[in-house]
Amino acid sequence: MHDILQSLQVILEQRKREGEPDSSYVASLHHQGLNKILEKVGEEATEAILAAKDLDNGGNREDLVGEVADLWFHSMVMLSHLDVGLDEIGDCLADRFGLSGLDEKAARKQP
Amino acid sequence: MHDILQSLQVILEQRKREGEPDSSYVASLHHQGLNKILEKVGEEATEAILAAKDLDNGGNREDLVGEVADLWFHSMVMLSHLDVGLDEIGDCLADRFGLSGLDEKAARKQP
Amino acid sequence: MHDILQSLQVILEQRKREGEPDSSYVASLHHQGLNKILEKVGEEATEAILAAKDLDNGGNREDLVGEVADLWFHSMVMLSHLDVGLDEIGDCLADRFGLSGLDEKAARKQP
Amino acid sequence: MHDILQSLQVILEQRKREGEPDSSYVASLHHQGLNKILEKVGEEATEAILAAKDLDNGGNREDLVGEVADLWFHSMVMLSHLDVGLDEIGDCLADRFGLSGLDEKAARKQP
Repeated sequence: MHDILQSLQVILEQRKREGEPDSSYVASLHHQGLNKILEKVGEEATEAILAAKDLDNGGNREDLVGEVADLWFHSMVMLSHLDVGLDEIGDCLADRFGLSGLDEKAARKQP
Repeated sequence: MHDILQSLQVILEQRKREGEPDSSYVASLHHQGLNKILEKVGEEATEAILAAKDLDNGGNREDLVGEVADLWFHSMVMLSHLDVGLDEIGDCLADRFGLSGLDEKAARKQP
Repeated sequence: MHDILQSLQVILEQRKREGEPDSSYVASLHHQGLNKILEKVGEEATEAILAAKDLDNGGNREDLVGEVADLWFHSMVMLSHLDVGLDEIGDCLADRFGLSGLDEKAARKQP
Repeated sequence: MHDILQSLQVILEQRKREGEPDSSYVASLHHQGLNKILEKVGEEATEAILAAKDLDNGGNREDLVGEVADLWFHSMVMLSHLDVGLDEIGDCLADRFGLSGLDEKAARKQP
């Protein structure tokens, strides 16, 4: 994962600011508004659930990977639309799991 | 975000292997099975959507942060249950957005 | 189906008015508010989807029946909470499908 | 509601049997398969939840009516796809709420 999510956040913010709905899927989502973005979050959650069931029944691994990527991507567009930063999500997860800024060390120590 | 998600993945794998449902929420989810985990993914998606609507209507920012953290956390338990790695999601997002391993540089170049 | 949904609506309205959260699940849902009711709608939709996948893979028919009943029941609590009548849903479906008040006759004529 | 749902079930079964995906939305859903139908159930649940939030914030009543109609309609296509009858859902709801075949009388007696 490294810093892929941060890089993605930089891109998402650029595309939100540029705001050319015709040329960018992300700008188009912002232009259509919050409900449209939330509909996509709901859709992708359902598609991830279906892909997980299918993988569990011998289906395609790539389908689940693609649907979870879509779910996280649209979650990030939602956060961007509401001006919530990725770091706030990271801090919340870190707090709950006792992960400090020194993440890997913390992960090794964690029971 | 740094490596919080990777650290979290390490913890999630440990708790799956340890498999003591009484002492760990994560082990308990794995023990209850895939449907239970997927129900949680669906629940947290709905709760994130409701928190986003509420924030848009003047509600609480922390609610949305907590619900997105929950959604991503349960997505990661789902991936762990099906032995799909976080790197596979990262690679998928990187491919779609033209992000190389040199993420930040790529982000700066990206239109 | 006959008039089971109408009878259910009568019961749901009674329980909303009585408003004793301790003695009735429905009154308790209204007391907890719209978000709680909508979380249940989302949960039951996910559970119906999982039960449908399981039935398609040789699983239990009763599970799907129970989950769809739960989904419709909680949809009706949502409608009741917002003072929307079952007849409005019926009229909307009738309009879309060209069903008049003379439903069965209309159904027979319908292509 | 009267017998609108039964009439709709008759129509849905006809369209499933006829199976001309080009001329009928319902036949097209069956042709695309269970996952497509379940994606629609998930989508419509999310849209109903958003419309309920909007109505609660002074939004449009017709939006919620239309989304619940869509949710129930696609639930019925799902049931039809898996050969589950509407009567099974009705019986399940009647059992849970103590509604006999004499529904209206039962509703009046029901606490």
